[in-house]
Amino acid sequence: MSYEPSPEDHFTFGLWTVGNRGRDPFGHETRPALDPVESVQRLGGLGAYGVSFHDDDLIPPGSSASQREDILKRFRAALDETGMRVPMSTTNLFSHPVFKDGAFTANDPKIRRHALRKTLNAIDLGAELGASVFVMWGGREGVESDAAKDIPAALDCYAEAVNACCAYITERGYEMEIALEPKPNEPRGNLLLPTVGHALAFIHELEFPEMVGLNPEFAHETMSGLSFHHAVAQVLWADKLFHIDLNGQVPGKYDQDFRFGSEGVKDAFYLVKLLEDSEWDGMRHFDAHAYRTENVDGVWDFARGCMRTYLILKEKAERFAEDADIQEALAAAKVDQLSLPTLPEDGEDRFTKLRKETVDIDALAAVGWGHERLDQLVTELLLGTR
Amino acid sequence: MSYEPSPEDHFTFGLWTVGNRGRDPFGHETRPALDPVESVQRLGGLGAYGVSFHDDDLIPPGSSASQREDILKRFRAALDETGMRVPMSTTNLFSHPVFKDGAFTANDPKIRRHALRKTLNAIDLGAELGASVFVMWGGREGVESDAAKDIPAALDCYAEAVNACCAYITERGYEMEIALEPKPNEPRGNLLLPTVGHALAFIHELEFPEMVGLNPEFAHETMSGLSFHHAVAQVLWADKLFHIDLNGQVPGKYDQDFRFGSEGVKDAFYLVKLLEDSEWDGMRHFDAHAYRTENVDGVWDFARGCMRTYLILKEKAERFAEDADIQEALAAAKVDQLSLPTLPEDGEDRFTKLRKETVDIDALAAVGWGHERLDQLVTELLLGTR
Amino acid sequence: MSYEPSPEDHFTFGLWTVGNRGRDPFGHETRPALDPVESVQRLGGLGAYGVSFHDDDLIPPGSSASQREDILKRFRAALDETGMRVPMSTTNLFSHPVFKDGAFTANDPKIRRHALRKTLNAIDLGAELGASVFVMWGGREGVESDAAKDIPAALDCYAEAVNACCAYITERGYEMEIALEPKPNEPRGNLLLPTVGHALAFIHELEFPEMVGLNPEFAHETMSGLSFHHAVAQVLWADKLFHIDLNGQVPGKYDQDFRFGSEGVKDAFYLVKLLEDSEWDGMRHFDAHAYRTENVDGVWDFARGCMRTYLILKEKAERFAEDADIQEALAAAKVDQLSLPTLPEDGEDRFTKLRKETVDIDALAAVGWGHERLDQLVTELLLGTR
Amino acid sequence: MSYEPSPEDHFTFGLWTVGNRGRDPFGHETRPALDPVESVQRLGGLGAYGVSFHDDDLIPPGSSASQREDILKRFRAALDETGMRVPMSTTNLFSHPVFKDGAFTANDPKIRRHALRKTLNAIDLGAELGASVFVMWGGREGVESDAAKDIPAALDCYAEAVNACCAYITERGYEMEIALEPKPNEPRGNLLLPTVGHALAFIHELEFPEMVGLNPEFAHETMSGLSFHHAVAQVLWADKLFHIDLNGQVPGKYDQDFRFGSEGVKDAFYLVKLLEDSEWDGMRHFDAHAYRTENVDGVWDFARGCMRTYLILKEKAERFAEDADIQEALAAAKVDQLSLPTLPEDGEDRFTKLRKETVDIDALAAVGWGHERLDQLVTELLLGTR
Repeated sequence: MSYEPSPEDHFTFGLWTVGNRGRDPFGHETRPALDPVESVQRLGGLGAYGVSFHDDDLIPPGSSASQREDILKRFRAALDETGMRVPMSTTNLFSHPVFKDGAFTANDPKIRRHALRKTLNAIDLGAELGASVFVMWGGREGVESDAAKDIPAALDCYAEAVNACCAYITERGYEMEIALEPKPNEPRGNLLLPTVGHALAFIHELEFPEMVGLNPEFAHETMSGLSFHHAVAQVLWADKLFHIDLNGQVPGKYDQDFRFGSEGVKDAFYLVKLLEDSEWDGMRHFDAHAYRTENVDGVWDFARGCMRTYLILKEKAERFAEDADIQEALAAAKVDQLSLPTLPEDGEDRFTKLRKETVDIDALAAVGWGHERLDQLVTELLLGTR
Repeated sequence: MSYEPSPEDHFTFGLWTVGNRGRDPFGHETRPALDPVESVQRLGGLGAYGVSFHDDDLIPPGSSASQREDILKRFRAALDETGMRVPMSTTNLFSHPVFKDGAFTANDPKIRRHALRKTLNAIDLGAELGASVFVMWGGREGVESDAAKDIPAALDCYAEAVNACCAYITERGYEMEIALEPKPNEPRGNLLLPTVGHALAFIHELEFPEMVGLNPEFAHETMSGLSFHHAVAQVLWADKLFHIDLNGQVPGKYDQDFRFGSEGVKDAFYLVKLLEDSEWDGMRHFDAHAYRTENVDGVWDFARGCMRTYLILKEKAERFAEDADIQEALAAAKVDQLSLPTLPEDGEDRFTKLRKETVDIDALAAVGWGHERLDQLVTELLLGTR
Repeated sequence: MSYEPSPEDHFTFGLWTVGNRGRDPFGHETRPALDPVESVQRLGGLGAYGVSFHDDDLIPPGSSASQREDILKRFRAALDETGMRVPMSTTNLFSHPVFKDGAFTANDPKIRRHALRKTLNAIDLGAELGASVFVMWGGREGVESDAAKDIPAALDCYAEAVNACCAYITERGYEMEIALEPKPNEPRGNLLLPTVGHALAFIHELEFPEMVGLNPEFAHETMSGLSFHHAVAQVLWADKLFHIDLNGQVPGKYDQDFRFGSEGVKDAFYLVKLLEDSEWDGMRHFDAHAYRTENVDGVWDFARGCMRTYLILKEKAERFAEDADIQEALAAAKVDQLSLPTLPEDGEDRFTKLRKETVDIDALAAVGWGHERLDQLVTELLLGTR
Repeated sequence: MSYEPSPEDHFTFGLWTVGNRGRDPFGHETRPALDPVESVQRLGGLGAYGVSFHDDDLIPPGSSASQREDILKRFRAALDETGMRVPMSTTNLFSHPVFKDGAFTANDPKIRRHALRKTLNAIDLGAELGASVFVMWGGREGVESDAAKDIPAALDCYAEAVNACCAYITERGYEMEIALEPKPNEPRGNLLLPTVGHALAFIHELEFPEMVGLNPEFAHETMSGLSFHHAVAQVLWADKLFHIDLNGQVPGKYDQDFRFGSEGVKDAFYLVKLLEDSEWDGMRHFDAHAYRTENVDGVWDFARGCMRTYLILKEKAERFAEDADIQEALAAAKVDQLSLPTLPEDGEDRFTKLRKETVDIDALAAVGWGHERLDQLVTELLLGTR
């Protein structure tokens, strides 16, 4: 197989990902700035479906209205020329010092209002370019010193802001949904909505819960040592997977945003299998960047690698379904019997019936479930020896 | 202050906590078994409000009906004599080998049915002893090899089991609510409902969501490096704090279940402050145990220490509110302004009004929020030098 | 390729690994005890080179001298019959409650003396069976409450015990070396000699440093989020790799001891490559166990899987050396130039010469090192698509 | 007590710590640049003993020789005026893009030579200002893709560079020692010499081991979940504590560099106790910075807080020694008996004597060590209620 991506694969990249300049907490930029138009052209050439952006990635802060129009005109031309789309957009509420105490949950209402204004503008920008998903990552919604933030009040403010954006989208008639992106920490000591679970629960306290879903990120869930595959499965189960951020990450470390599949390849495999098995039709969005050691050539190697690894894992997911030994091991582990109802009996006497049943517990306890064999088969599938 | 606990403080302990015999993955028991009746008497003498238990803690598996009655009679007598209560009970679905692949989410329906049966019996037992909360910790609901478990199907099964228990409680007319207890891993490689967030979100997919809340545990959330105080704040915000498990834990390590406040004392302080400030009236339940180095005397030192540290932190929470410097620092950080609405304007033109407002971003960005001063004041409050 | 192990591969297993009965902190045993003789026979049949053991694994505590002889006779017969060896032995200083405060570093000298006595006996037992490496894992050498242990004094005691064992081995004329096994925590809150580095440094404070090396374990170093491959490389560099424990582990979790390669396969690959490239001739020892879900069949699947994955990774390491694209990428990254001296100049004026040299820093900074391409090639080698 | 620092306390700060401008991976600077002269004056006013710096902190890269002299003259004047010292200096081998693949261990020898040249110049600068310790933190000595770095060769290069610096210092006749600073990761995926242990072991492979010691950092060891107090104890035990970096950090997170004592206060207490009990006479150096939420006022609150917390913990360490209950609990735990030799017997029959001794293991195993009581007493000492 060639593992050559095509637009049908729905691969997208943030402008900030290929445009990442290699700055980190201890080092200066190692790569020049990339023109968004070049990013669109190069990614289109590599087989991507589209790009996403923060408002500031496309329209530099302080641009005049006419500058904005010139940028958009040129950007649209590149999209038209390449057939690339903008399925998602977002806003940067974390870089400017004004957000140092939070944006939607800054203690000062003037800052919260500024954040909301900036977000409404970013929603307009996304809508103009056809984005159907608006991502919200609250990169500054958190705290280092717990005394400085009343958490329930902060959650109220957070909800108020999301509610306002939903109302705005509705009033404007945009075809747009909101996807919350959880993260446990960094750049703040602790962030609000730290995991997929916390963000998913938060949706239920909102005014327009049907408009709001999730944008889970591999690196963010993995930082806490949690299974990303399990988290996404729960989101799919709750019908709230609106978008997804794919990358690579080692547990318990700083936010690495490595190339997809470069770290955590087993979890990545089960994730790809889950997305493909469930026929999820959203964007496979890479929120990652090239190592700081790379020049611009390395950036395109990085982008190519993300997509290739996805396709390789997708092929393995298909072979998983066709592998007779794996299927036999799945049957031995009774994986399919998890779909049977536990209590198929109906009616008021169902508990009585259940209680009357006797079962040989010790015999059941003695059964071996064959997970070692099964896991080894999958390991060898992953390693390409079967 | 004496920091002497009294029943009004609502301190409770699991029978398995003081009864913990010091066994660990690498070592045998170091302490003799404790008679539940002795635990009730000793804890009552120390000022606790009550005890909780797993079915098997009180009624050894395999007991006959008459043995069960004898045990209950003796146990009730101890409760009556001491005035101790049983506010919570639960079931052990993790020790017996039959549950090695899960209980409510075992692949084999026969095991799931056995788990459900055992749970119904445990609900009856809890109800008999007056428990108003039934905790569900899914210690085996997870997996080491992801191929062996279909996660969405497992969530369906999990939900089916909780739904069935809710129906049973309702049909029996018990005054009992269910509290789910999340945990990220151990004893399984990854557990379902790994954090407070994931469990909170899960409730919204249930049939009787109003009957189901959470039992967050300090150690479990902390194992993932998440803020327990933030997690509990979100649960309170969602009105789902039905019970709480207090102990001590270092992030990124095995489940330690140390004495409350012995590790993570700053997070413990903010937690106590949150519970007291919100006037939450539930049980302060300690799910912890004495170090394996201890004999029985050390167990009672342990129990005494949990309660003393809570009371010490409670007093500090009161002094936080009275400390003029801290209050001044809170005002400087505008902590109270987080309760103001961000968008107080009503009506269809509210976004237009918001957009018309101009604000000096650079001036706002230049403000120092004084969190270093504030945090140092709290640190010194904790260290007892103010 | 068949990936069938043979004795030439030097694969060994602890009796306690295949003999693990599936007990964990929350659950009872799920598998029956295995007769050491059966383990020898089965492992021999699978192509292993030998077995290792703790004293208590082979000779149950409390055995009489004649029972000991009977056991040894039968065990030797199994070794002779199968051609299996005992390259390593060790002692259990962690299971018995007497060691709850430590063994070599227990505060009570009577316990330290007991630990030393038990160790001398275990050294004799190992020597009798031909073991040339004696492993020391200080599973109880640590503390939960730092007040309870004077760390420098504990290091003195630890050193005294290792020194005594070295003296004993020397005096007895055994051909035996000692390998220290580091671990960060579990079962104690913090263990002494927590990483490969700390243990390696400790050797230099000993009386017989040449007799003492390391037994690094994948799971133990990985628990702290450290690179096992880097750690072993430093041990090899210091010529102190006396033995190695292979298994699988996720960072930041309880000690999992999973099947080799089942978690952390990329780190496992670089480790195998390092061992093979350096032509290290020691034992590839698996210190892992089957999942608790398994019966005895699963145990042998587990053992087979450990060895197969090693052989698969070994083959990949060979192909790494032959892959033209990978070699080109290595050259582009100048990997070979790390072996050139930085300051080849000799003599007193070498620093003057160095300082006279001028170099175009900005040009050097602009070079892209091609690590994305290189890493993607290795990823695809691992995934078997090249 | 006033907890007012004075020069006798030996508190020092890096120019980069108070000068930190609040930039992070996701956000721009929030504070203006600080003039090093102002830092000296302000810190002197607060009671500090001295300052440290990276070459580039004091002399901006690209400065001419005369600019260098002007800067030094002005800086010296500030030192003279305030009585402040420069006990330590270091070099920045991590910010410039030229070091993106490493400095002493860059694959390209030209970059390694540049790094060495820059270091020699920095050593001269430190010597000029009287620094007696030169810190080496290898912030770029690591890798994201393991294929790109031959670890044993990298350790050779690292050692060659340290050896060259030692030779240079010796040849110049400087009174200066080198202190290596370990760190596990960030900004690289994995760093060489990741823990105190690995760095300590590395020293023994150097040409001038007596000239090289360690500069352990609270945050760096804590990131890996290791006990900083234990690590420093091992360094002191090996007589290699040349310098120390104090700050605050939560395990398993990005490098936080918070105010000393703000996180991990219990570990901080045992550390202070260790330093004070051992009468270590080195600098108490704070390598931390104010939260990004702060303006310049917050920076000085931060600096004041670091020193106050140290003094508060120092006072508690003194009270630990005087507290009768604590001393009683220490005696019950036999903490002092760890200093007794385990095998006081001399001569060739010492092992025979040891073996003849009988001891009642079960009685010893039944002793309770009272660590719960002891730890609770220390907890209450820390909380200021005793």
